[in-house]
Amino acid sequence: MKLPLITLTTDFGLADHFVAAMKGVILGIAPQARIVDISHQIEPFAIAQAAFTLDQAVRCFPPRTIHVAVVDPGVGSARRPLLVEAGGQYFIAPDNGLLTMIYARTQPRVRVISAQRYFRHPVSRTFHGRDIFAPVAAHLALGAAPARFGNLISDYVRGEFERPAPASPGRWRACILAVDRFGNLITNLPAADFAFLARVPFRLKAGRRVVRRWAGSYSEAAPGELLLIAGSSGYLEIAAREASAARLCGCAAGDRIELRCTSTGGAKTAEALTRTTAGRG
Amino acid sequence: MKLPLITLTTDFGLADHFVAAMKGVILGIAPQARIVDISHQIEPFAIAQAAFTLDQAVRCFPPRTIHVAVVDPGVGSARRPLLVEAGGQYFIAPDNGLLTMIYARTQPRVRVISAQRYFRHPVSRTFHGRDIFAPVAAHLALGAAPARFGNLISDYVRGEFERPAPASPGRWRACILAVDRFGNLITNLPAADFAFLARVPFRLKAGRRVVRRWAGSYSEAAPGELLLIAGSSGYLEIAAREASAARLCGCAAGDRIELRCTSTGGAKTAEALTRTTAGRG
Amino acid sequence: MKLPLITLTTDFGLADHFVAAMKGVILGIAPQARIVDISHQIEPFAIAQAAFTLDQAVRCFPPRTIHVAVVDPGVGSARRPLLVEAGGQYFIAPDNGLLTMIYARTQPRVRVISAQRYFRHPVSRTFHGRDIFAPVAAHLALGAAPARFGNLISDYVRGEFERPAPASPGRWRACILAVDRFGNLITNLPAADFAFLARVPFRLKAGRRVVRRWAGSYSEAAPGELLLIAGSSGYLEIAAREASAARLCGCAAGDRIELRCTSTGGAKTAEALTRTTAGRG
Repeated sequence: MKLPLITLTTDFGLADHFVAAMKGVILGIAPQARIVDISHQIEPFAIAQAAFTLDQAVRCFPPRTIHVAVVDPGVGSARRPLLVEAGGQYFIAPDNGLLTMIYARTQPRVRVISAQRYFRHPVSRTFHGRDIFAPVAAHLALGAAPARFGNLISDYVRGEFERPAPASPGRWRACILAVDRFGNLITNLPAADFAFLARVPFRLKAGRRVVRRWAGSYSEAAPGELLLIAGSSGYLEIAAREASAARLCGCAAGDRIELRCTSTGGAKTAEALTRTTAGRG
Repeated sequence: MKLPLITLTTDFGLADHFVAAMKGVILGIAPQARIVDISHQIEPFAIAQAAFTLDQAVRCFPPRTIHVAVVDPGVGSARRPLLVEAGGQYFIAPDNGLLTMIYARTQPRVRVISAQRYFRHPVSRTFHGRDIFAPVAAHLALGAAPARFGNLISDYVRGEFERPAPASPGRWRACILAVDRFGNLITNLPAADFAFLARVPFRLKAGRRVVRRWAGSYSEAAPGELLLIAGSSGYLEIAAREASAARLCGCAAGDRIELRCTSTGGAKTAEALTRTTAGRG
Repeated sequence: MKLPLITLTTDFGLADHFVAAMKGVILGIAPQARIVDISHQIEPFAIAQAAFTLDQAVRCFPPRTIHVAVVDPGVGSARRPLLVEAGGQYFIAPDNGLLTMIYARTQPRVRVISAQRYFRHPVSRTFHGRDIFAPVAAHLALGAAPARFGNLISDYVRGEFERPAPASPGRWRACILAVDRFGNLITNLPAADFAFLARVPFRLKAGRRVVRRWAGSYSEAAPGELLLIAGSSGYLEIAAREASAARLCGCAAGDRIELRCTSTGGAKTAEALTRTTAGRG
């Protein structure tokens, strides 16, 4: 028996009926579908946080999983709806940058969903999660071919938060992707590219604080001290031992931060990296 | 293979073991059942909010879905348990008005659940969700006929929150059904019946504030301004652009509000409506 | 068709990707598995609360259910991972006392999980829930025999919170296992053993308050008054009518409390009990 797997990522919260409405629509069309919640507690409209959370979870799901994500500053979803094949999985999301990390690490095939026969009618102005995203996911789960939902496009939106932007030699404009349960600030600085910070002096300005200390583990810091650490997410994280870095810095998901390497020793590496990331950017 | 669908709506929250206990009981009896959470974050004992949330979600579920709702000011559930067939679906809930909206739009067949052979024994005094509601839902999912659970009744409880009560010509006593994640106040004023407010002056007293402005969309208002808007729920909602109407008004689910039409032009329409709603009430 | 049942209990919260990552790993290995959340809102690192919540829920699940619990002050899980057969069910958890209540009421067979072929590779340093606990649960669900995962041990960790410790005749050091949604403080005083408190004067010191009143039901107290009551959990609970006992006392899960019987009449019973519990302890 086929048990198609569908995940949901939204900023709807869990108190209201919105998530259940999507699940009811899916199970009405595809009764065999398995539905897994990734998160419904994305901060309202926080696209970078949603993109990060989805990307982290997606890596653990089997091929052919269908990931539905609805986080959009327009009520419901104002952007055109996309169906994306990437890395052997499917993604259904508004065209607002929500899939930025997925695009960055795959060769995506991106379609604009236009086949209204797969929608729930009448389509409301404000709840596309229920009326477009959920039924499209269910029909895809039933076996409808992606090409039936709409045409391929190449002008889809990529967020600028995927990696830091080099500002000048030794300086980057970066951002906070997400704040985890313990108040750790997950930056968009890829740990692999910025591992050199372990060896050079740096200043990372985050909200009202400046982080200057690299640590291999939490225990290296004094309680309350801010440190930069390579997290399990693959990104550098700003953490504080036995305290919330988010509260100490006054930072939230989406906030901009600025990295500066102060030593000439580090500057060379940093400069080379600037060229690399500029080339990819 | 049969995959009966069971939904749960409670005020138990998600931190404690209560929801999982109900699911364990259901799956122990009906291992094939699919369980979908509608909400477990109903405000404690907020029957109007539960009734609204359930009614909104139910419309998206397929025929024969079994909806279990346990929100009751008595610990667990002090009221008699009901099994209701309505609109092609099933409802299991205490007789306290939780199904008011369902009753209002269907021809319900309402039974008092009395067949103790379907209960989990011993039945605790304080956790009927686990000991009565969950096992009854599971046995219904297995195919037991509704008539086996108890006799039909007609004296079941209907809440007064289903629609506003006309107080005098041009005046209605209404209430807040729910507060959504963004602080919008969902009233019990049906948008279809009160669309005339778009054309006449009105005063809607909600907590410490008075709303006087109708808007077709959020963008019509100044930031922080209160407005009345037709929401996706089918009811009028009090909203504030980029702010929480709940916080501005100091209102919560269940609070009473008062509507008054101040123009004579509108009064005629309003008066006619008073007669209509009085007739249905 | 086999539908193995797996439950999850963690302190990961619901906002981040952690819980979904575990579910993705499980369903990638065992697509037929049913997954039920017990709680992901255990207070960070609150082992006693997790042990209590798990134990309460477990009693409602059918035989052969696989319960996965990950709450550990080490990031991910620093303690050795266990696979336990107890009471006809399976438990996968770190060896830190999380299964204390299960051990106390069963004859557990406890193994250290060492068979790396069942792990997800590479095993991260910080997320054993995803890399060890989830895949082991999935392989167990597929039918791998417990003995294949590792050897039996007898030196597993038991928490001291399972029952109160007699301090001197008529005195016990006890603790708060959990705080429920309504602010009731669930103690580790078993209701069956301490029912005699209904008949003798006592002083129960909890945070900044002393509880002196036993009640058969909430309605016996004045609003705001603290009382001791036999809860549905099988333990005595500190409650306050129409108020949060947690807030009144300033207590949280894990806090120590102290019970003292002040009457000589009660002392005899209490003394006998001290011997009993000391014998079991």
